[in-house]
Amino acid sequence: MAVQVTENTPTVALGPAAALSCRECGQRFPLGPIFACQECFGPLEVAYDLPSGDPEGLRKQIEAGPNNIWRYAPLLPVPTDVADKPNLNPGFTKLVKADNLARELGVTGGLYVKDDSGNPTHSFKDRVVAIAVEAARAFGFTTLSCSSTGNLAGAVGAAARRAGFQSCVFIPHDLEAGKVVMAAVYGGDLVGIEGNYDDVNRFCSELIGDPLGEGWGFVNVNLRPYYGEGSKTLAYEICEQLGWRLPDQIVIPIASGSQLTKIDKGLKELIALGLVEDKPYKIFGAQAEGCSPVSAAFKAGHDVVRPQKPNTIAKSLAIGNPADGPYVLDIARRTGGAVDDVNDEQVVDAIKLLARTEGIFAETAGGVTVGVTKKLIEDGVLDPSLTTVVLNTGDGLKTLDAVAPTSGPTATIRPNLDAFRAAGLAR
Amino acid sequence: MAVQVTENTPTVALGPAAALSCRECGQRFPLGPIFACQECFGPLEVAYDLPSGDPEGLRKQIEAGPNNIWRYAPLLPVPTDVADKPNLNPGFTKLVKADNLARELGVTGGLYVKDDSGNPTHSFKDRVVAIAVEAARAFGFTTLSCSSTGNLAGAVGAAARRAGFQSCVFIPHDLEAGKVVMAAVYGGDLVGIEGNYDDVNRFCSELIGDPLGEGWGFVNVNLRPYYGEGSKTLAYEICEQLGWRLPDQIVIPIASGSQLTKIDKGLKELIALGLVEDKPYKIFGAQAEGCSPVSAAFKAGHDVVRPQKPNTIAKSLAIGNPADGPYVLDIARRTGGAVDDVNDEQVVDAIKLLARTEGIFAETAGGVTVGVTKKLIEDGVLDPSLTTVVLNTGDGLKTLDAVAPTSGPTATIRPNLDAFRAAGLAR
Repeated sequence: MAVQVTENTPTVALGPAAALSCRECGQRFPLGPIFACQECFGPLEVAYDLPSGDPEGLRKQIEAGPNNIWRYAPLLPVPTDVADKPNLNPGFTKLVKADNLARELGVTGGLYVKDDSGNPTHSFKDRVVAIAVEAARAFGFTTLSCSSTGNLAGAVGAAARRAGFQSCVFIPHDLEAGKVVMAAVYGGDLVGIEGNYDDVNRFCSELIGDPLGEGWGFVNVNLRPYYGEGSKTLAYEICEQLGWRLPDQIVIPIASGSQLTKIDKGLKELIALGLVEDKPYKIFGAQAEGCSPVSAAFKAGHDVVRPQKPNTIAKSLAIGNPADGPYVLDIARRTGGAVDDVNDEQVVDAIKLLARTEGIFAETAGGVTVGVTKKLIEDGVLDPSLTTVVLNTGDGLKTLDAVAPTSGPTATIRPNLDAFRAAGLAR
Repeated sequence: MAVQVTENTPTVALGPAAALSCRECGQRFPLGPIFACQECFGPLEVAYDLPSGDPEGLRKQIEAGPNNIWRYAPLLPVPTDVADKPNLNPGFTKLVKADNLARELGVTGGLYVKDDSGNPTHSFKDRVVAIAVEAARAFGFTTLSCSSTGNLAGAVGAAARRAGFQSCVFIPHDLEAGKVVMAAVYGGDLVGIEGNYDDVNRFCSELIGDPLGEGWGFVNVNLRPYYGEGSKTLAYEICEQLGWRLPDQIVIPIASGSQLTKIDKGLKELIALGLVEDKPYKIFGAQAEGCSPVSAAFKAGHDVVRPQKPNTIAKSLAIGNPADGPYVLDIARRTGGAVDDVNDEQVVDAIKLLARTEGIFAETAGGVTVGVTKKLIEDGVLDPSLTTVVLNTGDGLKTLDAVAPTSGPTATIRPNLDAFRAAGLAR
């Protein structure tokens, strides 16, 4: 660990964040750049002293805040003056009422797409990185880092420069050219690792423990407890944009599973704070068949997740050994939801379905959630008479290869009316 | 013309839009899908009965509106209930205070980037298309169309599906694969024309005059007067986001020149309505050297623009015969601004400058405006002590080729600490 947290570690000011607590044994630790319980090695998460007693005042404070995640600063591990600091300020993306898609899928209770392609680097990663940036600032780190298969590398590279950090991000050396360009263009260091994503991850863990990593904040390793909290803002925004109402059903993609667990955490906080009515909601998880360890465990009735070797076009979800898998299973079962998966062909079909109904061009992960939503409706698992929210976490421009083979010109003609008439495209 | 406008054309309800008026001779025509003066062939633009007498009430109405361009519906040619119609709802993108970039450029008076990459299909085209969609609806068109070199085709394809139109868009047959995919993925018809952009344009004009084009709204031809008004929203947003204040200087890219003229129109409206203080502002135009007909005319002191054959990486600005060129020259001179250009190498440098200072990855057009801003400051033309706004109108993900050759990994190493140490990247 580059920074040791002890009894003498000075208190950092991260708003309502009070401590880190172990999700397994409940042991608490002072706020610091640690991520595993020193007692039981369980994952740590942020524990809060949340504002209470005046939901109406809190709601008004939020509504008067900026059009980004900092409107929820009273519920996040960030300094109270966070909105004044240099940050990419992601969030408050569109919640699109998807009436055309609803008609195609037979949803009558209201269908919404939470479209995170509107974030600064066009994926939900901007949310989690924004929080990690503020934690890194509080802990005195000077370099931001991460292991990534693409989206995160771009998000960290962009956020670091804006916020005044150096950056050095690590990727497998054989990523698609487009993702490499996006990760490199911000000018920080970009290191290709000769190996796969697991090799990159292992290398980063080594680096954190070495003096070479002194002063480095790895957003998804030693800053992970803070980073993860960024996903709570999806829950807050969805409810606020529904008029401070819980949706009945939410469909969420699963990579590590962190996003799904944090959205559940966010919904529970809103209930506890009195910002939404306390009523049941169901959480559904979506995976690609080629990397479906959580879905497989759900279907088999297991509590633990057996790792898989990923083989899917949904690369941003291709984590074969998802750290939060067991928590996802628990949430899906506890809320009456489910976890399911679709194959790559269904992913492509779902990307195109969303594009041709709502004009939203999603990345493969968005195809996974829309595809699984369709499947769950057809199987009678998801109730079409209830208010349903589907997440699109990324942008189709980053995964063009998925749809390129089946998305081309209807016709190619010479520039005259006879040629156009012959092409049979007149209405 | 597919639809003839006569004295008997029923009045359409497009909010404060009262008529079309000729920019050359002032002749007025009823609102309809026409774009050229029937007297003098001059371009038509929308004339308004704007609300007056209560700026404070209007400001409050706007501020209480949705977080998109429809907050300005009282100033746009759209129905009053536009916010309830299916539309991609672009706009209200971030105005980023660019302190890091300001330091690099020596700007002390406040430097801002208006970042339109946050729009639904990631370019400012969503603004103009959104207005054209509502005009098409009002005129009873059933198919949306356009000629495009890329950004517009995607924007029309997406908007049409969301709004319930058929679409058929025309592009040169040899566009970059990525732009073709984006234009095709929404599922409308996409027609490649064997020829260049001028051939595509000529073909579209033929189609409008033919029965084959009956019921077709070409957003940038027969709907152009409405379409163009969408750019006014950039002026409204910039002033509102500055706290209802005019900037001192704005740097705007020039393709056809329409955007620049409409931003000027929007600023003048805000002054006339009493929403901002009446004070001088300067408008600067930015072109790429490889397509700089307006810049060349400005420097030569000419009032007319001599067409050029474009040859630049800034393809979204590559209009060699810009329709609004003379109006741009007039505005730049009248406001005390200027028009200048930068070469392709400077465009790439400027894209990377913006990326490494502010974490904003712009398309080549954004590189043009940032590059020209830098040049104008160095030449003493742009005053660094004044509040300055620079437009980024598109997204770097759409023009990856511009930066790919110079944006790659800093190092590629084996996954161990010795290899990392040897790469010399430790801080």
